[in-house]
Amino acid sequence: MSPSKQTILVTGGCGYIGSHTVLRLLETGYKVVVVDNLSNSSYESLRRVHKLYGITAASSSTSNFEDASLPVETLIPFHQVDILDREGLAKVFEFHPEISAVIHFAGRKAVGESGRIPLDYYNVNISGTVNLLQVMDEFHVRKIVFSSSATVYGDPPRIPIPEESPIVASMSPYGRTKVFLEHIIKDLCVSSAVKQQEYLKELEVHPKDHKKVYNYEWSAVLLRYFNPAGAHPSGIMGEDPQGIPNNLMPFLAQVAVGNLEKLSVFGNDYPTADGTCIRDYLHVVDLAQGHVAALEKMDKEQAAGTYGCKAYNLGTGTGYSVFDMIKAFNKAVGRELPHVVTARRPGDVPNLTADPRLANRELNWKAEKSLDEMCADLWRWQRNNPYGYNTVHEKN
Amino acid sequence: MSPSKQTILVTGGCGYIGSHTVLRLLETGYKVVVVDNLSNSSYESLRRVHKLYGITAASSSTSNFEDASLPVETLIPFHQVDILDREGLAKVFEFHPEISAVIHFAGRKAVGESGRIPLDYYNVNISGTVNLLQVMDEFHVRKIVFSSSATVYGDPPRIPIPEESPIVASMSPYGRTKVFLEHIIKDLCVSSAVKQQEYLKELEVHPKDHKKVYNYEWSAVLLRYFNPAGAHPSGIMGEDPQGIPNNLMPFLAQVAVGNLEKLSVFGNDYPTADGTCIRDYLHVVDLAQGHVAALEKMDKEQAAGTYGCKAYNLGTGTGYSVFDMIKAFNKAVGRELPHVVTARRPGDVPNLTADPRLANRELNWKAEKSLDEMCADLWRWQRNNPYGYNTVHEKN
Repeated sequence: MSPSKQTILVTGGCGYIGSHTVLRLLETGYKVVVVDNLSNSSYESLRRVHKLYGITAASSSTSNFEDASLPVETLIPFHQVDILDREGLAKVFEFHPEISAVIHFAGRKAVGESGRIPLDYYNVNISGTVNLLQVMDEFHVRKIVFSSSATVYGDPPRIPIPEESPIVASMSPYGRTKVFLEHIIKDLCVSSAVKQQEYLKELEVHPKDHKKVYNYEWSAVLLRYFNPAGAHPSGIMGEDPQGIPNNLMPFLAQVAVGNLEKLSVFGNDYPTADGTCIRDYLHVVDLAQGHVAALEKMDKEQAAGTYGCKAYNLGTGTGYSVFDMIKAFNKAVGRELPHVVTARRPGDVPNLTADPRLANRELNWKAEKSLDEMCADLWRWQRNNPYGYNTVHEKN
Repeated sequence: MSPSKQTILVTGGCGYIGSHTVLRLLETGYKVVVVDNLSNSSYESLRRVHKLYGITAASSSTSNFEDASLPVETLIPFHQVDILDREGLAKVFEFHPEISAVIHFAGRKAVGESGRIPLDYYNVNISGTVNLLQVMDEFHVRKIVFSSSATVYGDPPRIPIPEESPIVASMSPYGRTKVFLEHIIKDLCVSSAVKQQEYLKELEVHPKDHKKVYNYEWSAVLLRYFNPAGAHPSGIMGEDPQGIPNNLMPFLAQVAVGNLEKLSVFGNDYPTADGTCIRDYLHVVDLAQGHVAALEKMDKEQAAGTYGCKAYNLGTGTGYSVFDMIKAFNKAVGRELPHVVTARRPGDVPNLTADPRLANRELNWKAEKSLDEMCADLWRWQRNNPYGYNTVHEKN
């Protein structure tokens, strides 16, 4: 099935990575349905997606933007549903029988908070995802891209980290939800292959009982994100964290616009060149494209009769320290932002840098954007939207 | 609080281990409330508990059986509630504000089935338990004994297995639910200690805002069962598996009464003395006592201001092979039961034998009953109840 025929359900589609992925899907010719409970995201993000899609369409020489003039509600059907609400989810699938796959972003994601309220994390992330998987199976939608994280590697024995590095040592309840969900999705894929074999055998024995041949097999791609950063180059879409940001780059951006006084650098005594933690920062637009690549890979495999579950690192392969990132962002902003070195944060590991070669090879995906672009795009977004999506709501 | 004042909620209290534990709790002077969805158990088990409690009381020289003449509904309040039903659970706690701790047996437990329908296992075991923990926290009941399993050790590097053996390698979705739940309960305990510290600090700052001082800290004991077997020595309570039993001893018992033709021994080419798998079989009455010991341990610790989570092996420390067990059970039955050696079963590991010394020391618990008692008790139960609880329902 060509992309333009497929409809993808995006859970958490109003979030940071979700909204950028919705845009990328539309640009690539997919149709989308978005589910989000708006607990930590804003519907405004979809209005921005709609606007950008129109702008790109107007300036595009290709012809796959016939629907660019549709109103936002029609271009991006939206349902405010919590993934814990099984009946609500089922209604979405009932209403949209055209959904052929799910990109599943919805979930709680703050490492520190997960240590304080672990049951909430296990409830939303694990129970919510199990709910979603059960409803998908019920509606014969058995293709999923799942948002995993580099945190599944814990403190990895080797840098850069290959996918076969053990995924057992995650440092927080948040990380454990990702580890557990990877296992759950793998178990589901394995069980579905056995079920399909048994079904086909049964079909041979009683061929007349079956009018339609079902396929019970699941396809799944687990995407282990390294550190998403940056914003859409237009400057009208980006990350909009509630309260004080947990992550380095959005924190820096808030310092730059004056919402926060100074950055805290958590520890400068790590075993790295400058003593600060090293991470593999990748541009959110590159990350969004990784999801499209994952869908395409599963389609290609299914066309060849192959199903199952596979994990991929999405990172650049290059690690930068906290001080590197401050320097790069200072350059984009054009001045020195204040920072102070404080104590280590529990659970932080010295280095998480991806070996992205498996994704390069098998997903035909590569992070394209530079560190400077990432910083420039982030700054453009934050400068234009110092309070995120909540400043002025534009009318469509 | 002395046992006689405490009320324990037992989830899955109609099951095999659950019902034996309910009896043991009553005998020790606890009060109980039972929750069970009866999906794989029978209410009849509680009638038997009631009967046995009366018999023991009549013959007992001690005086803690004042309530032995109560009808079963009063002695053992029962609620047919599924642990996935959050409102149903909340109503049980509302109705019984006297509940001070929970022994949590409810869950799905068949290794093979878990490979076929993993989502059901993750849903019932994980989502159900997270539900239960959230409701408990809401009702300020923060003491739990959790049914874990030796399967969390996977294929352990060392026999006998100490508690610090890694718990990451479990061989089935069922086993993974136990591993994940151990982590979830540990995370909850850790988070609750931090919450309590913050609450006490807050209390110092604003002492007048608080009329009652709460304690948010959790206590948990994770009991890693080895292979429960046997039945109550009275012969009127025992294991009542639905369909064909998954485990060796109940299977043998069904062969002995003629419900099944012969035993299948799954593989005789394991690296053990006789080639069959070695397990650590413990008598269900000993196992039941382990739960009482766990409650007592938590009470003692709480009295000393100590909370938190700890795991204990419940096993005898002695491993027997499948052939050893057949021989022992043949002796109890008085004839040779037929068996046939078939292929290995995926996920079986050669040897799971407990190092029970931590439980001996810290829980003041030890498996007391011999292999011969285990076999004799099982045979008495099965001979008297060839179809389990479903044969003749006795009137109270």
